[in-house]
Amino acid sequence: MNNFTKKLFILTEQNETYQKLVESYDLPNLAITQEPREAHIVLAAPPLLAPQLNQFENLQWVQSTYAGIDTLIKDSLRQDYLLTNVKGIFGQQIAEYVLGLSIEHFRHFGLYRQQQRKQQWLPHPYQTLNSKTMVIAGTGEIGSYLAKMAKVFGIVTIGVNTRGIPKADSSFDYIYHIDELASAISKADIVVSTLPETVSTQGIFNQMALSQANSILFFNVGRGSSVEQTALIEALDRGNIAHAFLDVFPQEPLPSEHPYWSHPNITITPHIAAVSFPEQVVKIFADHYIEWEQGYSLRGCIDFSKGY
Amino acid sequence: MNNFTKKLFILTEQNETYQKLVESYDLPNLAITQEPREAHIVLAAPPLLAPQLNQFENLQWVQSTYAGIDTLIKDSLRQDYLLTNVKGIFGQQIAEYVLGLSIEHFRHFGLYRQQQRKQQWLPHPYQTLNSKTMVIAGTGEIGSYLAKMAKVFGIVTIGVNTRGIPKADSSFDYIYHIDELASAISKADIVVSTLPETVSTQGIFNQMALSQANSILFFNVGRGSSVEQTALIEALDRGNIAHAFLDVFPQEPLPSEHPYWSHPNITITPHIAAVSFPEQVVKIFADHYIEWEQGYSLRGCIDFSKGY
Repeated sequence: MNNFTKKLFILTEQNETYQKLVESYDLPNLAITQEPREAHIVLAAPPLLAPQLNQFENLQWVQSTYAGIDTLIKDSLRQDYLLTNVKGIFGQQIAEYVLGLSIEHFRHFGLYRQQQRKQQWLPHPYQTLNSKTMVIAGTGEIGSYLAKMAKVFGIVTIGVNTRGIPKADSSFDYIYHIDELASAISKADIVVSTLPETVSTQGIFNQMALSQANSILFFNVGRGSSVEQTALIEALDRGNIAHAFLDVFPQEPLPSEHPYWSHPNITITPHIAAVSFPEQVVKIFADHYIEWEQGYSLRGCIDFSKGY
Repeated sequence: MNNFTKKLFILTEQNETYQKLVESYDLPNLAITQEPREAHIVLAAPPLLAPQLNQFENLQWVQSTYAGIDTLIKDSLRQDYLLTNVKGIFGQQIAEYVLGLSIEHFRHFGLYRQQQRKQQWLPHPYQTLNSKTMVIAGTGEIGSYLAKMAKVFGIVTIGVNTRGIPKADSSFDYIYHIDELASAISKADIVVSTLPETVSTQGIFNQMALSQANSILFFNVGRGSSVEQTALIEALDRGNIAHAFLDVFPQEPLPSEHPYWSHPNITITPHIAAVSFPEQVVKIFADHYIEWEQGYSLRGCIDFSKGY
């Protein structure tokens, strides 16, 4: 160990797994430390890091193990370090979640399961995903990947973002500005929120937006704060939403007394639409580290003012 | 009506729907008849037609409303007419069925549904479809379409057919000869049978083939006769098959006392993996009719000796 050695502190739900994986890369001039004050780099799950951020006196860089870093973007928290998240590993997981549950819904798999218990052979008419319209709020990497997969099923895709214009090589058939969200929703069979938590996404799925929906499937795989709970329940009860699939909530775990749990047209999953597989996270960290250690600037740093 | 008028008899589960659709095409020199003896053409569901085939004294052509025409391929039945089935409309439906149920399995959606009833927030580790290996028995149109969709999810695809060689533009990564079925199965995470009912597919999923499987998902969306029931139950009980998804059976409806219904690792669906939407069937019939009426030969006729 020399003066150039960088010290890494690991703060995740699976520290041993992460430590072994980091060691397997044998990264130059990197040592793992158990002492927060010594650490230059922290590889961390944001909710674990946020309450003890001030203990890291020599902090230069935080590599988040999550995509969502909103728990670190608070005015009360320091922002004097570089922050990177993980990208590029969630698209397929989110697409499987949304497309798998959509197929299950339209093809009545739940109903057939009930019929099987009664030895009941009773086919039901159905529709395929072909020609359905999917509105995807958020046209970042996850939303774009979902759009690409959805198009393979013949789904028409409408992206909604803050610019109202598509990116190059976009798989979206149409792009709407976030101010036109309600209008986009009125055209949808399926609405998917992949939005991060920022000031402007708070409660964006409100009564005005959801009342435009026509018996849609609604997916929230972004952040719980973007959905107004009362508006969602109302939209379900009025038929604007046929079924809601919710993976994220303002408070997680979702409290056991919460009305979502028992609503017949809500499916709850415990924040598993996409998870960080440690192998993938450490590969991203190692790629970042090698560039950073050689003096290059870190790619894809979070802009604390935007929150993504 | 003149001497050239062709007479069509409709014999399906939805005669009124089919009649309206046929009429909407206003096909030249075609009249619908209610009299079997007058009919030159029959648009029919094979199981309905088979027992009354001999009543059609002037029969020239049968357009099946199904893909599966095995109930018409019996030595005891006449074969002195042209037989066409419907193609090109089942691929997406089969792919949705197989991929949707595979995702549901690997992503534990059934388990989360049970946990929701208990207000239980408990994430489980999972794998995506990426890098799984899928063996598809039958590399015809349905098998090929499924392979194409599977590859989008990063699945490695092995086709099994009677030639052991791929078609041009095939989406299969590898092709095995049907005699190597057991060897293909030994490499699979998912096995899908799209095989038609022929002499050589009878009981092809037997003890020898299924004992090679390593905790696979097994799908039968072809014909019930290709699976040996005792071998399937044994393979489930020994763990060669983790879960079987069965949509077709030697006898349909599946008798209510059948052991499949209550097996914890069998999912039964009532022959709905793909259905013939009348709009699509009649479009195929109309395209065929226009060529045939002009004196061209019918494309895609069934070879009675092969059974497909």
